Amino acid sequence: MESGRLEAFSDGVFAVAITLLALNLAVPGPGHGPLGEQLVHHWPVFAAYVVSFLTIGIIWVNHHALFRNFARIDRPLLFFNLLLLFFIVSIPFATATIADYLSRSGPDAALASAIYQGVFLGMSLSFGALLWWSIRREHLRTPLTGTSARWAFIRFAGGNVVYAAAIGVAFLSPLASLIVSGLVAVYYVFEHTPAQAQGPAGKSEAPSGPEPYDR
Amino acid sequence: MESGRLEAFSDGVFAVAITLLALNLAVPGPGHGPLGEQLVHHWPVFAAYVVSFLTIGIIWVNHHALFRNFARIDRPLLFFNLLLLFFIVSIPFATATIADYLSRSGPDAALASAIYQGVFLGMSLSFGALLWWSIRREHLRTPLTGTSARWAFIRFAGGNVVYAAAIGVAFLSPLASLIVSGLVAVYYVFEHTPAQAQGPAGKSEAPSGPEPYDR
Amino acid sequence: MESGRLEAFSDGVFAVAITLLALNLAVPGPGHGPLGEQLVHHWPVFAAYVVSFLTIGIIWVNHHALFRNFARIDRPLLFFNLLLLFFIVSIPFATATIADYLSRSGPDAALASAIYQGVFLGMSLSFGALLWWSIRREHLRTPLTGTSARWAFIRFAGGNVVYAAAIGVAFLSPLASLIVSGLVAVYYVFEHTPAQAQGPAGKSEAPSGPEPYDR
Amino acid sequence: MESGRLEAFSDGVFAVAITLLALNLAVPGPGHGPLGEQLVHHWPVFAAYVVSFLTIGIIWVNHHALFRNFARIDRPLLFFNLLLLFFIVSIPFATATIADYLSRSGPDAALASAIYQGVFLGMSLSFGALLWWSIRREHLRTPLTGTSARWAFIRFAGGNVVYAAAIGVAFLSPLASLIVSGLVAVYYVFEHTPAQAQGPAGKSEAPSGPEPYDR
Repeated sequence: MESGRLEAFSDGVFAVAITLLALNLAVPGPGHGPLGEQLVHHWPVFAAYVVSFLTIGIIWVNHHALFRNFARIDRPLLFFNLLLLFFIVSIPFATATIADYLSRSGPDAALASAIYQGVFLGMSLSFGALLWWSIRREHLRTPLTGTSARWAFIRFAGGNVVYAAAIGVAFLSPLASLIVSGLVAVYYVFEHTPAQAQGPAGKSEAPSGPEPYDR
Repeated sequence: MESGRLEAFSDGVFAVAITLLALNLAVPGPGHGPLGEQLVHHWPVFAAYVVSFLTIGIIWVNHHALFRNFARIDRPLLFFNLLLLFFIVSIPFATATIADYLSRSGPDAALASAIYQGVFLGMSLSFGALLWWSIRREHLRTPLTGTSARWAFIRFAGGNVVYAAAIGVAFLSPLASLIVSGLVAVYYVFEHTPAQAQGPAGKSEAPSGPEPYDR
Repeated sequence: MESGRLEAFSDGVFAVAITLLALNLAVPGPGHGPLGEQLVHHWPVFAAYVVSFLTIGIIWVNHHALFRNFARIDRPLLFFNLLLLFFIVSIPFATATIADYLSRSGPDAALASAIYQGVFLGMSLSFGALLWWSIRREHLRTPLTGTSARWAFIRFAGGNVVYAAAIGVAFLSPLASLIVSGLVAVYYVFEHTPAQAQGPAGKSEAPSGPEPYDR
Repeated sequence: MESGRLEAFSDGVFAVAITLLALNLAVPGPGHGPLGEQLVHHWPVFAAYVVSFLTIGIIWVNHHALFRNFARIDRPLLFFNLLLLFFIVSIPFATATIADYLSRSGPDAALASAIYQGVFLGMSLSFGALLWWSIRREHLRTPLTGTSARWAFIRFAGGNVVYAAAIGVAFLSPLASLIVSGLVAVYYVFEHTPAQAQGPAGKSEAPSGPEPYDR
């Protein structure tokens, strides 16, 4: 399968990025007060870690579903994928930055949150570009019909709109913006629209299967 | 094979997590006393490294055995697997924390040990969820019969009970709780029950083979 | 496919190296002035990150295209590939060094830039060695004819000449040399010569296809 | 292919370990004297990096050659492989330690060098255990005959003897012991015995091929 190496490289980047997130978790250690207090003061680090882990995990699941349906890979897809990976690779940095500033107030916390949401927006837009190009150039094994293509777009547009809104929310309340992106991730865990079952994640061999990852 | 990419991503996470463990090993270096003394004072780091390495290694072997027997992957399996990876990714952090506090006494050492055992318990419970879902939804190529399913559950329940007990032991003796989790890992290296040979690791092509990893 | 494991190992190294680049991005954090100012002062880090990310991404795309066309792997290819990976692995170090010195002037900035361009030159020469060996020993599935082989060499020689020139430029203006290597990467993103379509990236099954990555 | 996931996991560990080596390369940076002087004082870091990179690269090539010839994987092989990976994962730590102490003299430098060579010896012995088990249990596709098995053992025993000797040399001259392990790596790059061509790296499909990696 020709897309094999592209997926292997992407999986490597997803796997390293999701694991590097945990490098941030380290507490200051002995001599900096009781461990319990250190952990409590460290809550923004853990909160940002959970949201970022879930977000990378979800986008990997979506990436997996999209590429399973690819009939061919062309050069623009390689570069749209590279753009997506650019934002994935930036997530540990954005996570560390928001974790550093989340418990503070003022413009620094807002800026750190806006960067975090901006990286998510970039990731989401790149994924949309992958999807748009694959539909436009008919790279999909199970072509999306008008309705399901529209559904797929509405779903991705929805994610983009929420991330863009979260950049605005960041300037009102950094914590609220983190919660918003956490909810986006949780939503995609449980969301299971017909468009997805028949759309990019659907398989031509089992177009009516209730679960898109069934073999 | 449809589960290929899920395994490739999981293998990447396992590989990065197990290798990042070693980032902790660094000694302070020149100017902090004789190297021999630094290494001796560093013993909790090495002890925790060995236990965590073995534990990730064993869970990878079990993951490998379970997924070899998967006939199909559905969306809940993807998310149970993501939950498992969440705990795997947290192991380097938990290892660094217990290593920092193991040679001290008092509530900080107990808390650090309890976190360490808690991460292992979370990992073990997630793995149990993967197993439970795959049996319940009949995703396995070689279905587990009543007896072997019961055996498989007893084995996993056993691991969970020991990790839960080790959380309690952590408050009595952090070192004892580390030893307990080390023994769990060593036990799974040598353990080789009939349930395992015929159970999740067994192959339909060679159900009577004495070694579950034979091709 | 015999080259599978070589590609898997190489993909792993590419993926880790490209992701480690982002470890550099961390800003000093709270207590070091407004975040906005920290980010502005941090511009060399971001500029070097973008150039290095693009460069590793491009060389991965080229590696992918070359190995797709390999009919067989011999021991010298394994070691030329190892040499290429040696330079890839050095890129995060070279990137961190140029980022540290880019906004300064004088011989240190020039030296840091020359090291950066030198690592890129080493990478490019190693890739050329892979290409040269594969053509000379007729390892390619679609042999390069005189014209397309000449084209392929001109392209790679071009990259090498520019990187060598950038080492010289580094002593005049470190920033200009960074821009040069950024332009090389951008050029390879958009460049799409006939030699490439029919050359190392071409497939015997689809020799006239307009896009070398089509299946 | 059943050994696929074992190789994928191992490749991941090799790839992460070889890339993490470069994290050590970072120089102190601005404010610590001219960059040229920092780099010159940093020579042990670069020397140890080159030797460790080559050593991991070579052992990966040998691992690749051995596993290509595996007809089946059993549980002991999984654990011998895990033991090998344990030493591979320890190499970045051992490399950082020897780099810290190489330019000093006295017992600390000797100890750091002995640890470095000890990790290489452990790696080499684990690899020997993999080879021994695979021959004894007849896991190889092209069984090693008496002569080629003896050759293969002599080669691996040779590496072990040299690493063991290098531990001794470490107490006389740390630098000499580093050079010894560098020479071992260079030797394996160029070494190409008949035993290897027909032995573990040979293919049953092409037993007389002059190059073991030919397809």
